[in-house]
Amino acid sequence: MPLPPPPQRSFASDNASGAHPDVIAAIIAANEGHAIAYGDDDWTLECQARFAELFGSGVETLLTFTGTGANVLALTTLLRPVDAVVCAAGSHVNVDEAGALERIAGAKLLDLPTPDGKLVPEQLAELASLLDNEHHVQPAVVTITQSTELGTVYSPAEVAALSEQAHSMGMKVHVDGARVANATAALGSSIAALRSMTIDAGVDVITFGGTKNGLLGGEAVVFLDPDLATRARFVRKTITQLPSKMRFVAAQFNALLDGELWLRNARHSNEMAARLYDAVAGLDPIEVAKPQVNGLFPTLPPVAIGPLQAWSFFWEWDTAKHQVRWMTSWDTMADDVERFAAGVAAAVAA
Amino acid sequence: MPLPPPPQRSFASDNASGAHPDVIAAIIAANEGHAIAYGDDDWTLECQARFAELFGSGVETLLTFTGTGANVLALTTLLRPVDAVVCAAGSHVNVDEAGALERIAGAKLLDLPTPDGKLVPEQLAELASLLDNEHHVQPAVVTITQSTELGTVYSPAEVAALSEQAHSMGMKVHVDGARVANATAALGSSIAALRSMTIDAGVDVITFGGTKNGLLGGEAVVFLDPDLATRARFVRKTITQLPSKMRFVAAQFNALLDGELWLRNARHSNEMAARLYDAVAGLDPIEVAKPQVNGLFPTLPPVAIGPLQAWSFFWEWDTAKHQVRWMTSWDTMADDVERFAAGVAAAVAA
Amino acid sequence: MPLPPPPQRSFASDNASGAHPDVIAAIIAANEGHAIAYGDDDWTLECQARFAELFGSGVETLLTFTGTGANVLALTTLLRPVDAVVCAAGSHVNVDEAGALERIAGAKLLDLPTPDGKLVPEQLAELASLLDNEHHVQPAVVTITQSTELGTVYSPAEVAALSEQAHSMGMKVHVDGARVANATAALGSSIAALRSMTIDAGVDVITFGGTKNGLLGGEAVVFLDPDLATRARFVRKTITQLPSKMRFVAAQFNALLDGELWLRNARHSNEMAARLYDAVAGLDPIEVAKPQVNGLFPTLPPVAIGPLQAWSFFWEWDTAKHQVRWMTSWDTMADDVERFAAGVAAAVAA
Amino acid sequence: MPLPPPPQRSFASDNASGAHPDVIAAIIAANEGHAIAYGDDDWTLECQARFAELFGSGVETLLTFTGTGANVLALTTLLRPVDAVVCAAGSHVNVDEAGALERIAGAKLLDLPTPDGKLVPEQLAELASLLDNEHHVQPAVVTITQSTELGTVYSPAEVAALSEQAHSMGMKVHVDGARVANATAALGSSIAALRSMTIDAGVDVITFGGTKNGLLGGEAVVFLDPDLATRARFVRKTITQLPSKMRFVAAQFNALLDGELWLRNARHSNEMAARLYDAVAGLDPIEVAKPQVNGLFPTLPPVAIGPLQAWSFFWEWDTAKHQVRWMTSWDTMADDVERFAAGVAAAVAA
Repeated sequence: MPLPPPPQRSFASDNASGAHPDVIAAIIAANEGHAIAYGDDDWTLECQARFAELFGSGVETLLTFTGTGANVLALTTLLRPVDAVVCAAGSHVNVDEAGALERIAGAKLLDLPTPDGKLVPEQLAELASLLDNEHHVQPAVVTITQSTELGTVYSPAEVAALSEQAHSMGMKVHVDGARVANATAALGSSIAALRSMTIDAGVDVITFGGTKNGLLGGEAVVFLDPDLATRARFVRKTITQLPSKMRFVAAQFNALLDGELWLRNARHSNEMAARLYDAVAGLDPIEVAKPQVNGLFPTLPPVAIGPLQAWSFFWEWDTAKHQVRWMTSWDTMADDVERFAAGVAAAVAA
Repeated sequence: MPLPPPPQRSFASDNASGAHPDVIAAIIAANEGHAIAYGDDDWTLECQARFAELFGSGVETLLTFTGTGANVLALTTLLRPVDAVVCAAGSHVNVDEAGALERIAGAKLLDLPTPDGKLVPEQLAELASLLDNEHHVQPAVVTITQSTELGTVYSPAEVAALSEQAHSMGMKVHVDGARVANATAALGSSIAALRSMTIDAGVDVITFGGTKNGLLGGEAVVFLDPDLATRARFVRKTITQLPSKMRFVAAQFNALLDGELWLRNARHSNEMAARLYDAVAGLDPIEVAKPQVNGLFPTLPPVAIGPLQAWSFFWEWDTAKHQVRWMTSWDTMADDVERFAAGVAAAVAA
Repeated sequence: MPLPPPPQRSFASDNASGAHPDVIAAIIAANEGHAIAYGDDDWTLECQARFAELFGSGVETLLTFTGTGANVLALTTLLRPVDAVVCAAGSHVNVDEAGALERIAGAKLLDLPTPDGKLVPEQLAELASLLDNEHHVQPAVVTITQSTELGTVYSPAEVAALSEQAHSMGMKVHVDGARVANATAALGSSIAALRSMTIDAGVDVITFGGTKNGLLGGEAVVFLDPDLATRARFVRKTITQLPSKMRFVAAQFNALLDGELWLRNARHSNEMAARLYDAVAGLDPIEVAKPQVNGLFPTLPPVAIGPLQAWSFFWEWDTAKHQVRWMTSWDTMADDVERFAAGVAAAVAA
Repeated sequence: MPLPPPPQRSFASDNASGAHPDVIAAIIAANEGHAIAYGDDDWTLECQARFAELFGSGVETLLTFTGTGANVLALTTLLRPVDAVVCAAGSHVNVDEAGALERIAGAKLLDLPTPDGKLVPEQLAELASLLDNEHHVQPAVVTITQSTELGTVYSPAEVAALSEQAHSMGMKVHVDGARVANATAALGSSIAALRSMTIDAGVDVITFGGTKNGLLGGEAVVFLDPDLATRARFVRKTITQLPSKMRFVAAQFNALLDGELWLRNARHSNEMAARLYDAVAGLDPIEVAKPQVNGLFPTLPPVAIGPLQAWSFFWEWDTAKHQVRWMTSWDTMADDVERFAAGVAAAVAA
């Protein structure tokens, strides 16, 4: 059975999308005259004020280009020699950043297994035996991903419990929030929801994602505890993440934070994933869990995977299990979902 | 004497300017639908083809965000442990990159004094005693800046002589071309001029600047010897310089390379510097050399510096000598030059 | 029930022992007159010749001070940026070297779970999906410990199978042989046995332990494939492991290699562990596996552990399981074993 | 004219000598029974107490193997990311440690020119413009060598002035004291002299050399301000400098510190250099300054250098100037000096 016309937009990743029109408009508006480079400009000041307002606190915000750069900036700022970062085994920082932290910070990642991408306090507690022993690296920061690489979401209580355990061991807490907007949308879609799982839950620093949520490119590292940021701007430069014409990164974020565009984009993306779930969940023999955010991780008949990828590309997630990943984006249209689901239906029926 | 109205555009740096309209237009055009991230897109393929055409050879091109990132990418790719990079003492990589190379590559910079920012082959030859001695770092790459941080320009013959000396010692040659367009404009303003001082002169890899020449942000690392690039794309990721939505960096460069916009921008910038020189060279007691590219490095009466900076900001270059730096940009207008020169005249007459 | 008199020598670790008298004698003999530092001396030349003879091949040998230093030297020499080292999760390089490799080489360790400290080829094969993907570190070296941290021993066939898999993926093979003498003793106690599981099994470089086998302090990194050693002596210096008065490290190894002292020491140590096993294996409720080399890993009644440690110190190995580690050494006496076993019997009977 | 019989001992370096008999005796005495590894032994406790007594203060002492290791340990402990170390251009840490600090700490060395190997406070003051500027590395530690690589000695007042300047800029002060014993001998040869130029002069941490002054091998890093040492023992392990059988390093230092052997050795070495000076200073056309410690840096007729090196090896120091280096050692005999001077006389007369 031939496949129907493919969707116009890809389900490969939320970074296959382009920039939201408001973001483009903000760049054009910022492209007026001269501005001193490296952040000494009005757009960057506005951006810092917007993040302080978002978190309701005197946070310290630094803009960067990439998520890997943002994570390395946040973590390197917190680490001394021999300090280690605790993370989930499947986390982006452990698997998908090509060893950036090891190279740049010279630090070890202590990666722990998880069934669902989420660390639990007991896993931190088990690392206490490493502390104060000179033969071992010293757990100093725990980094969690919200929402996780597996599409799961930490509840505010779960983050708070992890923070409490971490802080009791002298550790700091970092959130890789490449998709924190999607997690916020899932947890109530409000600024209060964002705060409840970050600043109110004891998180010390967060990578606040922009690129996957409608920017051309840009991430923000927000030190919720600004006392930890003393050296951050030096670190940003040394890790190559200091934007020269900073105004253009700031302007993008200003557009994203204006009128809660970041939440609107994320809600839409989550809704498209839910819609895709509704369309494919009943297709035998697909097995797929109901999405919490903007990704589905279905298992497919092996013979269907290749033809579907050739038709509209997506990534395999766990080859051994024939599990793939379908991501929706801020600009995914209902028509894209319908076409994609139709193609899947045709392929698995074949 | 009061100062006249300041210019609309700054002489602080060529990165105080914004993006050329063609670059903005290219971004808008690229913002259509979805594209697989990380460079698997048509814009990036086009960009690679354009650079191959520019250098007339099978070069390998990798796009990055920043000049520091581009330099670190180029150099880290070339270095083994204990290898060192030879550079001018005043070079950007040595002074203005916050130790990025030392941190990321773990490599030493051997910085050599120069009167004018330009290294000479004899300086490399003197390092031969380090080679094969396990107590010393091993000179492995020489990096030169074209045009230099002091506004000087290597002739093609000078680059060729350095390359010959470097290669005879088993070293590679890198050009930090953050302003290679301005240097090209100074050396004949043609593609032949670019080639004569790079690929024809034995250069192995070049950082081809975009940000200072009309982009929102973007640099290209071009391996003129593509055999050296085998590991470059891995290095780019690990140093945090892999753009996610690569098409938007590529599209900017495509606009810059199209119709020789890069050369037109650079010529204009150089011409504005020459015009500024003409306007201020005769003002007693200013001492200033005729610019080769787009920067002037005048010495001013000490009392004039502060008021002029407050009026239209620029950087001091050598405080002890009361030397400052004035940079023109691709968008500097004749009116800006006139106003700025008028202000300078007023300040030094005061 | 009171504990009997403790043994004179500890079962805490094989590095609690001192140096063999022949080693001391060799140091005294080497302490005659002057010798040019850093290895340009007769003792070092002799040492290199002895290792070439031991492996029957043109190996390249570099002496270092510590096992951590030797491992870092071997691995750093083999790694390029973004390359990773595959190891067992419980390996010394992963757990007990305080992140030395991550800091010094900037490289990631890919640590894999094992029931018995031994990697299998299938585990390497599963990493093939990382290769050539710029988002992931690139598996470049597999390091195995022989004998392992859990007292197990790879057979020559097992090493050969791992090497074959590794080489088929473009990877190199390193053996952390801090206790390779004990493994050799277990596998036939001959030079042929050593070769069968190293050079004949495709191993590229080995850390040949000395400190735990009767030296004051010293390890040898032997590049069985000398082509891989080109940069090793430079790396040794930069990682701080170049001995100044090298003759004294070399002299120790010359004594150890002379007359197969290394094998005699290891055999004795293994025999003492076997004797200890015989003495305690029947003591209810101790559970302990028959040792392959010089360590036992028994589980004890929880209440017995503390008093026994206070009486004659040893390390807990797995607190949750009440498992401890008892190591014998080259100088452990039968009387030490008897006394220690008597104390254990008394403690578990209490 | 043929050369007379060469001296029995070399003038190549003070690390060409062996170990003092008392040091060997101490090793033999320490080689009794078992001792828990890594410093939990009586010899190490005694050594720490001896250093506290030497400096009259609650210092924190860590033993290492090599001078490079000791310097890297001291400096890495003091550095945060982007921090830099200020040093003399010709210093060991800059020239002769193969980039160890850059690789291991990821830190830049800011090397300053000196006529005599000695930094002056004004040079630090000139670096103040770097502070708080994110584009530049941040000067955080100044390291000076005492006595210097050129055989000069800082007076206590000179060290105090440097410390005062450094501390006023928020910097710490490290002394590379590979030959601090020789400097102490030159400054009065008393414990008071040692203290006057270190702890009393504001020095924060010192590398106290042992290897060049009669040990088999061993250096001590003494944190004169013990508050700075919090992380030092972790750093020591991660940089591969934690001795396993620590008692043997400690025992060597205990012998060296006992009865002021360290000062007696250094005085003797200095005296032999003075004697050599007396014997050769008048030989035309040799130019040589009177030695302050145990090294001479004469200029020789070019044709004499090769034959003399072949006869009794020494190192060239500045090839362009035909300057060489002659070092005396703790075991240099008067007869060695006479023979060496006779050879020099014969060679320059030839």
